[in-house]
Amino acid sequence: MTNASVSGSAAPDRFVRIVEEGPREGFQTEATVIATADKIALIEALADAGLGEINCASFTNRQQMPQMADAEAIFAGLARRGGVRYTGLWLNLKGFERARASGADLVATLATSASETFGLRNNQRDRAGMLEAQRALGAAYVGAGLTRATGYVFTAFGCNFEGAIPASQVVSSVSDLLQVGQECGIGYDAMVLCDTIGAGTPASVRAALGAVRSRWPALELALHLHDTRGLGLANALEGLRLGVRRFDTSVAGLGGCPFAGNRGAAGNVCTEDFAYLCAQEGYETGLDLERLIACASLAERIVGHPLPGKLKNAGPFGRHATRSSPSTLPVSCRPAA
Amino acid sequence: MTNASVSGSAAPDRFVRIVEEGPREGFQTEATVIATADKIALIEALADAGLGEINCASFTNRQQMPQMADAEAIFAGLARRGGVRYTGLWLNLKGFERARASGADLVATLATSASETFGLRNNQRDRAGMLEAQRALGAAYVGAGLTRATGYVFTAFGCNFEGAIPASQVVSSVSDLLQVGQECGIGYDAMVLCDTIGAGTPASVRAALGAVRSRWPALELALHLHDTRGLGLANALEGLRLGVRRFDTSVAGLGGCPFAGNRGAAGNVCTEDFAYLCAQEGYETGLDLERLIACASLAERIVGHPLPGKLKNAGPFGRHATRSSPSTLPVSCRPAA
Repeated sequence: MTNASVSGSAAPDRFVRIVEEGPREGFQTEATVIATADKIALIEALADAGLGEINCASFTNRQQMPQMADAEAIFAGLARRGGVRYTGLWLNLKGFERARASGADLVATLATSASETFGLRNNQRDRAGMLEAQRALGAAYVGAGLTRATGYVFTAFGCNFEGAIPASQVVSSVSDLLQVGQECGIGYDAMVLCDTIGAGTPASVRAALGAVRSRWPALELALHLHDTRGLGLANALEGLRLGVRRFDTSVAGLGGCPFAGNRGAAGNVCTEDFAYLCAQEGYETGLDLERLIACASLAERIVGHPLPGKLKNAGPFGRHATRSSPSTLPVSCRPAA
Repeated sequence: MTNASVSGSAAPDRFVRIVEEGPREGFQTEATVIATADKIALIEALADAGLGEINCASFTNRQQMPQMADAEAIFAGLARRGGVRYTGLWLNLKGFERARASGADLVATLATSASETFGLRNNQRDRAGMLEAQRALGAAYVGAGLTRATGYVFTAFGCNFEGAIPASQVVSSVSDLLQVGQECGIGYDAMVLCDTIGAGTPASVRAALGAVRSRWPALELALHLHDTRGLGLANALEGLRLGVRRFDTSVAGLGGCPFAGNRGAAGNVCTEDFAYLCAQEGYETGLDLERLIACASLAERIVGHPLPGKLKNAGPFGRHATRSSPSTLPVSCRPAA
């Protein structure tokens, strides 16, 4: 992996691994169907920018999710860069089998929802049903030679239906997934706490991380955050300060559950904005900011509407800093504070 | 002041004072001239939402700043709410005299730029010239019976021309303003460090606050932040954590220097998003979030284009939380993480 190889040059505790979700979670909520060639172009550009793991497509029901009906075509058409993992998402055995056949890089995932109500609405399964489905997946993973997984706890910080999710409920969900893994003979590389609907705050990030850590100190925790209410990067900063070193993000802030009523506002934390924060705070990501910004502009051209990421508009601070061209300051900038 | 009276009910160290900049800094960068009645409607709605100090207009050159040519008309037309300060901005004696005559609530301000190059471009004055102008203002303030001021240090975290601004340069600027104040017999209620062009990061906020505090421990420091590169709320959170209790913000994220090439991206930190962060982190602002969101929607209708604030699109978390209406979750939300 590109990220992993880069991590060799940074102090390990300062290396932040960023997993790109844009091509998968980002495009699934677009109103118009995105051309396969456009998706492939974005994925290839993201790999060129240094991303080591890119979630490229969903192997889900083609009728229910027409935006993702071309999952196989994406993996067939991709020009792959060495060391990069091109992954897909699936929710059941059929999806996993499709992913295996497609040539996607297989990252086994086991998931549950901290909010049972959300699980019922989003995955049509109650808590027991979710876990039963994960057991079936786990058995299939082991049959395919996969004995490591990434765990996902959806709605770890709040749910549209149940409201705030107490940290104890996150602990229960993690416990459930660990139990399933143990039954199947699968260990976890990371447990991803997902702020599925953008309910998280620095305080709730702190509470959930603290509660899970105190129970399983050796378990690597990751964050999948949405910027629905503007707190995405503040929450990510809190995670960084508390030692989280893996984050799921989305180029240009693409995607997210449109439940909030405004697609642009509900996306994942923006990859390039977060990478910029990391760089400014002294963390190493192995990512090329200028290339990431070019990816974000490409994503915006592909979807055909403005996307919420900020850095793509302004550029990293210092890019334009020069004493030699001060006349570019517009009059309308005066008086400024 | 509304804010001040509310602060009586919160532990003083948890009360955050928010100064609204939208009507002044926000509208000055709009391409179309905003109707005076619209400005007044927004200002009155902001006061109803609990803001205790609202910067309503600039008393600047009407030819150079046609958006602000109606400053007097705004103050003449406002229906004022008791305890709210309706302030204006001026940069010179002529502007101050206009403000006095207009009936604006007078908050004396003394300002300089940490980046001398920016001061030259923005205010057409070098460091010595800036300070000379502040001395003249200071004398006029004392003549008008004003012996307390708010200090502003522009470009405290970086400048488009000079690049990063070291904390020592911020200390020099604060020292300059304190010196001018002392010469004139004026004390400071607060010293506002301004991230004029959105160059700030949590690290530079920390560095500047730390350097100024270690020299003047009793001086109240405030932050005026822009969200040009997405770090606005992360920087604000850092300020909160470091004890800053006064912030300049802008409803809906209005305004800001358009230098970044994208007006929507360069605005001030958004009032309602920041107030939401404060509430979630256990700080008291005295603001009514739902009314603030209504103000943000009004601001968007007035300017006629989307504004960057997020909370106005999603609403505070929990507003829609109910177990009784789960059928509203859209199909396109699946599968979510």
